[in-house]
Amino acid sequence: MRALVCHAPHDLRLEARSADAPGPGEVAVQVAYGGICGSDLHYFQHGGFGTVRLQEPMVLGHEVSGVVAALGPGVQGLTLGQRVAISPSRPCGQCRFCQLGQHNHCLDMRFYGSAMRFPHIQGAFQDWLVISAAQAHPVGAGLSLSEAALAEPLSVGLHAISRAGSVLGQQVLVTGCGPIGCLLIGGLRRAGAARIVAADIAEGPLACARAMGADATVNLASDTEGLAPYAVDKGQFGVMFEASGNARALQAGLAVVAPRGVIVSVGLGGDAALPLNTLVAKELELRGTFRFHAEFATAVAFLSQGLIDGRPVISHVLQADQASQAFALAADKGQSMKVQLSFAGACAET
Amino acid sequence: MRALVCHAPHDLRLEARSADAPGPGEVAVQVAYGGICGSDLHYFQHGGFGTVRLQEPMVLGHEVSGVVAALGPGVQGLTLGQRVAISPSRPCGQCRFCQLGQHNHCLDMRFYGSAMRFPHIQGAFQDWLVISAAQAHPVGAGLSLSEAALAEPLSVGLHAISRAGSVLGQQVLVTGCGPIGCLLIGGLRRAGAARIVAADIAEGPLACARAMGADATVNLASDTEGLAPYAVDKGQFGVMFEASGNARALQAGLAVVAPRGVIVSVGLGGDAALPLNTLVAKELELRGTFRFHAEFATAVAFLSQGLIDGRPVISHVLQADQASQAFALAADKGQSMKVQLSFAGACAET
Amino acid sequence: MRALVCHAPHDLRLEARSADAPGPGEVAVQVAYGGICGSDLHYFQHGGFGTVRLQEPMVLGHEVSGVVAALGPGVQGLTLGQRVAISPSRPCGQCRFCQLGQHNHCLDMRFYGSAMRFPHIQGAFQDWLVISAAQAHPVGAGLSLSEAALAEPLSVGLHAISRAGSVLGQQVLVTGCGPIGCLLIGGLRRAGAARIVAADIAEGPLACARAMGADATVNLASDTEGLAPYAVDKGQFGVMFEASGNARALQAGLAVVAPRGVIVSVGLGGDAALPLNTLVAKELELRGTFRFHAEFATAVAFLSQGLIDGRPVISHVLQADQASQAFALAADKGQSMKVQLSFAGACAET
Amino acid sequence: MRALVCHAPHDLRLEARSADAPGPGEVAVQVAYGGICGSDLHYFQHGGFGTVRLQEPMVLGHEVSGVVAALGPGVQGLTLGQRVAISPSRPCGQCRFCQLGQHNHCLDMRFYGSAMRFPHIQGAFQDWLVISAAQAHPVGAGLSLSEAALAEPLSVGLHAISRAGSVLGQQVLVTGCGPIGCLLIGGLRRAGAARIVAADIAEGPLACARAMGADATVNLASDTEGLAPYAVDKGQFGVMFEASGNARALQAGLAVVAPRGVIVSVGLGGDAALPLNTLVAKELELRGTFRFHAEFATAVAFLSQGLIDGRPVISHVLQADQASQAFALAADKGQSMKVQLSFAGACAET
Repeated sequence: MRALVCHAPHDLRLEARSADAPGPGEVAVQVAYGGICGSDLHYFQHGGFGTVRLQEPMVLGHEVSGVVAALGPGVQGLTLGQRVAISPSRPCGQCRFCQLGQHNHCLDMRFYGSAMRFPHIQGAFQDWLVISAAQAHPVGAGLSLSEAALAEPLSVGLHAISRAGSVLGQQVLVTGCGPIGCLLIGGLRRAGAARIVAADIAEGPLACARAMGADATVNLASDTEGLAPYAVDKGQFGVMFEASGNARALQAGLAVVAPRGVIVSVGLGGDAALPLNTLVAKELELRGTFRFHAEFATAVAFLSQGLIDGRPVISHVLQADQASQAFALAADKGQSMKVQLSFAGACAET
Repeated sequence: MRALVCHAPHDLRLEARSADAPGPGEVAVQVAYGGICGSDLHYFQHGGFGTVRLQEPMVLGHEVSGVVAALGPGVQGLTLGQRVAISPSRPCGQCRFCQLGQHNHCLDMRFYGSAMRFPHIQGAFQDWLVISAAQAHPVGAGLSLSEAALAEPLSVGLHAISRAGSVLGQQVLVTGCGPIGCLLIGGLRRAGAARIVAADIAEGPLACARAMGADATVNLASDTEGLAPYAVDKGQFGVMFEASGNARALQAGLAVVAPRGVIVSVGLGGDAALPLNTLVAKELELRGTFRFHAEFATAVAFLSQGLIDGRPVISHVLQADQASQAFALAADKGQSMKVQLSFAGACAET
Repeated sequence: MRALVCHAPHDLRLEARSADAPGPGEVAVQVAYGGICGSDLHYFQHGGFGTVRLQEPMVLGHEVSGVVAALGPGVQGLTLGQRVAISPSRPCGQCRFCQLGQHNHCLDMRFYGSAMRFPHIQGAFQDWLVISAAQAHPVGAGLSLSEAALAEPLSVGLHAISRAGSVLGQQVLVTGCGPIGCLLIGGLRRAGAARIVAADIAEGPLACARAMGADATVNLASDTEGLAPYAVDKGQFGVMFEASGNARALQAGLAVVAPRGVIVSVGLGGDAALPLNTLVAKELELRGTFRFHAEFATAVAFLSQGLIDGRPVISHVLQADQASQAFALAADKGQSMKVQLSFAGACAET
Repeated sequence: MRALVCHAPHDLRLEARSADAPGPGEVAVQVAYGGICGSDLHYFQHGGFGTVRLQEPMVLGHEVSGVVAALGPGVQGLTLGQRVAISPSRPCGQCRFCQLGQHNHCLDMRFYGSAMRFPHIQGAFQDWLVISAAQAHPVGAGLSLSEAALAEPLSVGLHAISRAGSVLGQQVLVTGCGPIGCLLIGGLRRAGAARIVAADIAEGPLACARAMGADATVNLASDTEGLAPYAVDKGQFGVMFEASGNARALQAGLAVVAPRGVIVSVGLGGDAALPLNTLVAKELELRGTFRFHAEFATAVAFLSQGLIDGRPVISHVLQADQASQAFALAADKGQSMKVQLSFAGACAET
């Protein structure tokens, strides 16, 4: 089979690899689709981000779906040919964070396609992937495998929403309408937000935000008022999700979130200078959100039942052997939203 | 104008009343539709419930919508002819509960159509109703006034959901699929429950539950298994809403709710013998829910935006001068779901 | 060494047993003191409780302290002669409840001295006990091993308090002032309750409650007013802990807990007929609490640092060979509070 | 009577004022003691802070106690000569924040000694103060009026603790050991923190922190390790309170607070550059806290019952006619902790 390996910045190679047999409790999956994520892009463009750097060739990718192709000994509940979404979250189950139910903070997390540890955790952009049976989540018959590959970024959004508490009936702001922000908007509509306002600096993402359920959009680059109208009466929003990684969006948010309101920071940016006086005087709560674990099953359920429709987020699907073009496209936010690669399993989809 | 007055059990009279002018901060509304609620039925059938008894003639009704017909001095934000849902929740704003934001526990609450105090609080089943401007909630152009009259029972459901915390992604059980239970189901789908199972003892309510979004239904009278399959693994539901007022439903619920799960009790029944050992050993939480206040605005927003469609719940609309037939119909759960009366304002609806 | 074995109701035998060597990750402890708990009494008096019945001889006891006497291979952080409190909570760490951080609901919990499973889980009333190193919690130099054996019942109280949320500044009622209730009172004072009222039907427990920090006591058997003065204004207490297992205490509590208040049910009684109308109309929350897990370490810390003084709760200490007298004393609530047995390790205490 | 008026930076004058009679629902109090707070210092030293500037002479002070000297018509529950702590929190009760129970965000708050509005809200540093009866909180017989004047800063600490949720059994860090931080430490011990570590850059405040209950102290200026030992295992603290207003303390805190931990920001500083990556990756929660309202009653109860002893925090008491020396002393953190002024009522104290 083939695996998409990043050797260095801009050095992606589709290499032949052996297709291993699944061991006890494992299944082998023919990967169908894999979505390109921000971290994949960082490895491709820069060889890493922050202190995380590629020190050896690494297979990229963690947002994948596929078809069960082989069952290891003792596996129950899965059948050959079953269409599944694959969770990349592989906590150890034993460290104190896992024992607290906080698996996303596992001290020994092996998240696909990550150079945070050495040896690196090889990613999922390959035709054939051997996984633990627990990672395989069957999807509904009516859900395409391309959509199923959205389960991972949708899980990020659902976990972010869980960090905010209930959003039922609330006025919510989302800044940053890339794939994560847009799927978050779909999650917010599903979670009962009364009104969702989406902000970004370009029209393409805002159009996608509307398609995903945003009630109103604000173009921070071209709207002269910007978010100012929402600052009246100490702030109109009860909850805000910052998904752009841009410090200015966070600062603008402090003015439009009401006293005791919650700001969930999704985007990983660098240092940000925050007007702490505002946060203190309005008793705002700035909460970080990082990955997910249990939400993956919920994401698959929502997509399978049509309770969230993620199709507006998928802008391009290219074959794996066109990976370089796909990554270049994914890096061009003006041209693309979520770019996916198709692998051998895309043909196997019934 | 006419008012529907209950003088004694089974003694309903549509009486002529003067149409008062609205005072400062008030508006007069031509009532269009009024839904008959369980408490209205109790006054009609029995003259009250528990210790609450009619001691003087009382206008019934608290679930109403209408058209603004006159504006009192100083009223802003409302216009003649505006179509509104009317909140029956009128807290004093000054007692310690209001000052805590717990308006539904106001010590001086004047809830329409209630004999809890004397003189009784006259209800809203009249052609012409003078209200505080704050009670008037404009509804969207696409929402009929008949649907707008569902805002009150929907508010009860939304407040019940708020008592449970976030239901996003949860497995939820609702027992008792009358109008309140069914609107609650609509609220749960809107709030992001992953799976909603509805239980009742008759097929009519279960059909309505499905129309409102229930994923599966259980007929506790005819299904030999009943809820038993959901008791596996210490219980399958994270949250349960008991809306039937039947103690047996509550007892059955304790077996199917998972450890640390929440049971929200909506239905007002009498004493119930609870297996406390189960509640303690599974660390279950039994929470009462009573009326609502702020949720009314959210209910109107959801109905207006089409985020919740309440039409399946309305089974009959009769004119006010057919009130006795309407009440008899409302009392027959096998024949009806929500029965509404139409008043003068139904003709005024643009 | 000797073990205290219950063969049948009123048939307790102190039998010779071999002293096993600790295996990898284990330590052997010379047990010093063991407190007699309600469940131990039930086995002694009735051979069990509810559906839980002795089907084979079982060593009783789960509230123990002792001195480390042997270290198994690979054990770190413990030394010979170290004085420890022993946690009886032994969850599997792998079931879904353990993976959620809800270890007290472990599907494979092996809690000392329990006939809930077969073979029974043998208890801790023995001179020599081999335990997992993780169960051993070193206690402060200033804390006697008799007091250290209170860590388990104190943990029950601390977990119950965690079920209530923050009690800082609150008016709190505790009904049932046996050892659990009294240690709970000590925990409540430590947790910052502003006022603690304790109720029971006998003076002995109320005196202990005052010694543990209760600000006022009510004798429900002799005070003609009882709790009635606390029912004013819809209830004076924000939180109530019911530790007597008596349904009447729970019913009385519903009248004196304020709207939105929380009632934590600690006591395991049978079915209780609850006035659900009151629970619903006041939006009360009835929450079960069951055992503990992580709180054991906190209990040991509080006792060791003198932040909670449990000495008023210990009424009698008898040697293990006087077990029958000890159990008879423990069964006589009018004569005793917490009765402890001393084992070989009591002499080894430095 | 005399009032302490600030006319301009360093221009404090003790001026004669008439002693008004209390109106309906009001009482007149002979002020005994008044504590100098950071905001009072800012007016004295700089004429204001940030955008808040003195535009007319203003009486300073908001932390006062005294003796009831006259009762207005209709006042019940207070008697002449009663010793009281005076709450400076005077919300309107009617704006939407008051109606939500969030009185500290009142849109029409009239907090003593504030130039945030014009005309300014005159402060409480005067011999004779007419207040609403609701502001008067009787103190216990065993509590001196000097200690009673600590109720206000203690309330700030208690409200900050409420923002954190339950701290029972937690490892807690407090940075900034001025009067607010030290009283917060007293509140944390009362609220059941298992271990309290206090950090500051000088020994005086750290000694006071220890006297108030801190288990360990760290001198960030002289300890070469600083807080580094607490950063192990992703952070040792579950909760942190930042009371210094120093951005570096906040940044250091992010490294020592465990995943999902809470950081409550008390100190009003300027902008702070925060390493958002850390906040996001560890899912930390940064929450602002501002003033208080209901906590004042709790503070008075804790002080009156001896559940919190605030005496270590009071370093100096000077007579009102030595105000300038008092303010200079208060500005010298190396020399003072809480400096209080005594007024006419100090002599009236029985």
